[in-house]
Amino acid sequence: VDDIGFFEVINSQTGVTRYKPDPVPVDAIETILDAATKAPSGANLQPWEFIVITDPDMIRQVGELYRETWLDHMGREPEPDEGSVKGSARYLAHHMSEVPAMILICIDHTRGYGYKPGNPIVRDRHGASIWPAVQNLFLAARAVGLGTRLTRVHMHREAELKAMLKIPDQVETVCLTPLGYPAQPFRPPRRRPASEFTSYDVFGNRDNSSPG
Amino acid sequence: VDDIGFFEVINSQTGVTRYKPDPVPVDAIETILDAATKAPSGANLQPWEFIVITDPDMIRQVGELYRETWLDHMGREPEPDEGSVKGSARYLAHHMSEVPAMILICIDHTRGYGYKPGNPIVRDRHGASIWPAVQNLFLAARAVGLGTRLTRVHMHREAELKAMLKIPDQVETVCLTPLGYPAQPFRPPRRRPASEFTSYDVFGNRDNSSPG
Repeated sequence: VDDIGFFEVINSQTGVTRYKPDPVPVDAIETILDAATKAPSGANLQPWEFIVITDPDMIRQVGELYRETWLDHMGREPEPDEGSVKGSARYLAHHMSEVPAMILICIDHTRGYGYKPGNPIVRDRHGASIWPAVQNLFLAARAVGLGTRLTRVHMHREAELKAMLKIPDQVETVCLTPLGYPAQPFRPPRRRPASEFTSYDVFGNRDNSSPG
Repeated sequence: VDDIGFFEVINSQTGVTRYKPDPVPVDAIETILDAATKAPSGANLQPWEFIVITDPDMIRQVGELYRETWLDHMGREPEPDEGSVKGSARYLAHHMSEVPAMILICIDHTRGYGYKPGNPIVRDRHGASIWPAVQNLFLAARAVGLGTRLTRVHMHREAELKAMLKIPDQVETVCLTPLGYPAQPFRPPRRRPASEFTSYDVFGNRDNSSPG
């Protein structure tokens, strides 16, 4: 496989709203999951779990749950207006049951940093050990021409989603992404410049000419 | 700048323990912060803040706080044994005050998803909006030949670190990384294969031949 440039990937990876119906090859899925596992995690414990959904019936069930959850929690406005972040997320919610594939990224707390049997599981405390893997997965998908989008709407009805996919108690869902070839070309992320958020040596100092 | 291959970066980015004393050029720092800001965040709110520490006195102060925190919370074993994750982290803790540069990655909760003035700030709830930026930063550093390491030990004494760097209340520190040219070549991450953590359609199903 030709290796696309690193900065080309970084500068064209954004959330994809519309997908072509084409199926996603298994070897592409394996490539992006391999990339995900190269991310760091606390004490290198690698607590990730990936559920790849390609069965059309399962995609429909998960997509329908997703759409209902969106309507209940994000609003019942009629469909599009894709010109905003929320508008495009709403479009996706209405079409989630038609995407060619999904990946649900999870963390198994019994493999997490600091876990001891019998201790209660503290949700949302292990971001450092799972989100870097998610970002590797998103970037690697872009590198092989696949679109993704970071969604968390399912968390409002996580218990139902876990039952649907037979996910055990100790495994927390983290991120649900559609996966497929984008219907439109990749475009650069719209971001404010890093200089607005960068301090040198003490917070708020924008002068980068300090010694060293 | 020549663009290094994406998968070459992914397959050689690991935490770096030992750094050359050479200073880190400002333009390299700007390149990696620019890459960090290309990451996704909830509603594209971009809540990140980056504090770049290059002043030797400040590095010494932060490094000494880091070392003391390590000794108090991670143990007082005599130095090396670098052959394990903990051993190399311990080596780094003892030498943090000598690294050429550091970046402290933070999140400003008043720019976070769902923030409303007057609401209490819930720590650790916005991993989705900051860790992808951290991972972009780590990968971009590798792409320009710089080493990093994900550390969170400072969290045990975050209030002191925030006072030292004059960080306001609403800004939570997330990750402190040393930054510099590695003293040893980049090496592949040691990871278990993705297939051990991959399910198809329902949790635990390892058969990837489902329809679709």
